[in-house]
Amino acid sequence: MARLVMRTRSKPYPVTVGDETKYICGCGLSATQPFCDGTHKKTRDEPEGTLCWYDADVGRNELADAFPNIRTPSE
Amino acid sequence: MARLVMRTRSKPYPVTVGDETKYICGCGLSATQPFCDGTHKKTRDEPEGTLCWYDADVGRNELADAFPNIRTPSE
Repeated sequence: MARLVMRTRSKPYPVTVGDETKYICGCGLSATQPFCDGTHKKTRDEPEGTLCWYDADVGRNELADAFPNIRTPSE
Repeated sequence: MARLVMRTRSKPYPVTVGDETKYICGCGLSATQPFCDGTHKKTRDEPEGTLCWYDADVGRNELADAFPNIRTPSE
Protein backbone atom coordinates (compact mmCIF):
# COMPACT_ATOMS: atom_id res chain seq x y z
CA MET A 1 0.00 0.00 0.00
CA ALA A 2 1.36 3.36 -0.98
CA ARG A 3 0.03 6.79 -1.65
CA LEU A 4 1.11 10.33 -2.43
CA VAL A 5 -0.27 12.99 -0.12
CA MET A 6 -0.02 16.77 -0.30
CA ARG A 7 1.73 18.89 2.27
CA THR A 8 1.94 22.68 2.35
CA ARG A 9 3.25 23.17 5.89
CA SER A 10 6.95 23.82 6.43
CA LYS A 11 7.22 23.51 10.19
CA PRO A 12 6.31 20.92 12.80
CA TYR A 13 3.16 20.81 14.92
CA PRO A 14 3.91 21.34 18.61
CA VAL A 15 1.66 18.98 20.58
CA THR A 16 1.61 19.66 24.28
CA VAL A 17 0.40 17.09 26.77
CA GLY A 18 0.56 18.22 30.35
CA ASP A 19 3.89 20.02 30.61
CA GLU A 20 5.61 18.13 27.81
CA THR A 21 5.71 19.23 24.16
CA LYS A 22 6.34 16.85 21.28
CA TYR A 23 7.13 18.14 17.81
CA ILE A 24 5.16 16.27 15.18
CA CYS A 25 6.29 16.28 11.54
CA GLY A 26 4.37 18.83 9.50
CA CYS A 27 6.32 18.88 6.24
CA GLY A 28 5.81 15.15 5.68
CA LEU A 29 9.48 14.40 5.08
CA SER A 30 10.90 13.52 8.50
CA ALA A 31 12.75 10.22 8.70
CA THR A 32 11.61 9.80 12.31
CA GLN A 33 7.84 9.74 11.76
CA PRO A 34 5.69 10.87 13.39
CA PHE A 35 8.25 13.19 14.96
CA CYS A 36 10.12 16.15 13.49
CA ASP A 37 13.76 15.61 12.57
CA GLY A 38 14.40 19.08 11.17
CA THR A 39 14.01 18.13 7.51
CA HIS A 40 11.34 20.82 7.07
CA LYS A 41 14.13 23.37 6.89
CA LYS A 42 14.83 22.11 3.40
CA THR A 43 11.31 23.00 2.28
CA ARG A 44 11.38 26.65 3.30
CA ASP A 45 12.57 27.97 -0.03
CA GLU A 46 10.28 25.97 -2.25
CA PRO A 47 9.35 28.13 -5.22
CA GLU A 48 5.85 29.60 -5.12
CA GLY A 49 3.40 28.03 -7.50
CA THR A 50 5.28 24.77 -7.93
CA LEU A 51 4.56 21.28 -6.72
CA CYS A 52 7.66 19.58 -5.38
CA TRP A 53 8.74 16.11 -4.36
CA TYR A 54 11.89 14.99 -2.59
CA ASP A 55 14.13 12.03 -3.28
CA ALA A 56 15.59 9.67 -0.70
CA ASP A 57 18.44 12.09 0.01
CA VAL A 58 15.98 14.98 0.42
CA GLY A 59 16.96 16.37 -2.93
CA ARG A 60 14.20 18.61 -4.22
CA ASN A 61 12.51 18.02 -7.51
CA GLU A 62 9.62 19.74 -9.20
CA LEU A 63 6.82 17.74 -10.68
CA ALA A 64 8.16 18.35 -14.16
CA ASP A 65 11.33 16.63 -12.96
CA ALA A 66 9.37 13.42 -12.57
CA PHE A 67 10.08 13.03 -16.27
CA PRO A 68 13.82 13.65 -16.46
CA ASN A 69 15.19 14.36 -19.88
CA ILE A 70 11.82 13.61 -21.45
CA ARG A 71 12.16 13.10 -25.17
CA THR A 72 11.02 16.18 -27.03
CA PRO A 73 11.07 15.54 -30.76
CA SER A 74 11.40 18.67 -32.80
CA GLU A 75 8.20 20.09 -34.27
CA MET B 1 4.90 26.01 -0.87
CA ALA B 2 3.59 22.57 -1.65
CA ARG B 3 4.93 19.10 -2.00
CA LEU B 4 3.89 15.52 -2.55
CA VAL B 5 5.15 13.03 0.01
CA MET B 6 4.90 9.25 0.11
CA ARG B 7 3.03 7.33 2.75
CA THR B 8 2.80 3.56 3.09
CA ARG B 9 1.31 3.35 6.60
CA SER B 10 -2.41 2.73 7.00
CA LYS B 11 -2.88 3.32 10.71
CA PRO B 12 -2.07 6.11 13.16
CA TYR B 13 0.96 6.38 15.42
CA PRO B 14 0.05 6.14 19.09
CA VAL B 15 2.19 8.65 20.96
CA THR B 16 2.09 8.33 24.70
CA VAL B 17 3.10 11.21 26.94
CA GLY B 18 2.85 10.42 30.61
CA ASP B 19 -0.39 8.52 30.93
CA GLU B 20 -2.09 10.07 27.91
CA THR B 21 -2.00 8.65 24.38
CA LYS B 22 -2.51 10.79 21.28
CA TYR B 23 -3.13 9.24 17.90
CA ILE B 24 -1.04 10.92 15.22
CA CYS B 25 -1.99 10.64 11.55
CA GLY B 26 0.02 7.94 9.80
CA CYS B 27 -1.76 7.64 6.47
CA GLY B 28 -1.21 11.31 5.65
CA LEU B 29 -4.85 12.02 4.82
CA SER B 30 -6.44 13.14 8.08
CA ALA B 31 -8.29 16.45 7.96
CA THR B 32 -7.31 17.15 11.56
CA GLN B 33 -3.54 17.18 11.20
CA PRO B 34 -1.46 16.16 13.01
CA PHE B 35 -4.11 13.96 14.63
CA CYS B 36 -5.90 10.91 13.29
CA ASP B 37 -9.50 11.36 12.17
CA GLY B 38 -10.07 7.79 11.00
CA THR B 39 -9.50 8.47 7.29
CA HIS B 40 -6.80 5.76 7.20
CA LYS B 41 -9.59 3.19 7.09
CA LYS B 42 -10.12 4.19 3.48
CA THR B 43 -6.55 3.21 2.60
CA ARG B 44 -6.69 -0.35 3.88
CA ASP B 45 -7.72 -1.91 0.61
CA GLU B 46 -5.33 -0.08 -1.65
CA PRO B 47 -4.24 -2.46 -4.39
CA GLU B 48 -0.77 -3.91 -4.02
CA GLY B 49 1.80 -2.53 -6.39
CA THR B 50 -0.03 0.70 -7.15
CA LEU B 51 0.63 4.27 -6.17
CA CYS B 52 -2.53 6.05 -5.11
CA TRP B 53 -3.64 9.58 -4.41
CA TYR B 54 -6.88 10.83 -2.90
CA ASP B 55 -9.06 13.73 -3.93
CA ALA B 56 -10.66 16.29 -1.61
CA ASP B 57 -13.55 13.91 -0.87
CA VAL B 58 -11.10 11.07 -0.11
CA GLY B 59 -11.91 9.44 -3.40
CA ARG B 60 -9.11 7.11 -4.37
CA ASN B 61 -7.24 7.45 -7.60
CA GLU B 62 -4.29 5.62 -9.02
CA LEU B 63 -1.40 7.49 -10.50
CA ALA B 64 -2.55 6.62 -13.99
CA ASP B 65 -5.77 8.42 -13.09
CA ALA B 66 -3.81 11.66 -12.88
CA PHE B 67 -4.28 11.74 -16.62
CA PRO B 68 -7.99 11.11 -17.01
CA ASN B 69 -9.15 10.15 -20.45
CA ILE B 70 -5.67 10.78 -21.85
CA ARG B 71 -5.79 11.03 -25.61
CA THR B 72 -4.52 7.82 -27.17
CA PRO B 73 -4.30 8.18 -30.93
CA SER B 74 -4.51 4.91 -32.75
CA GLU B 75 -1.21 3.39 -33.91
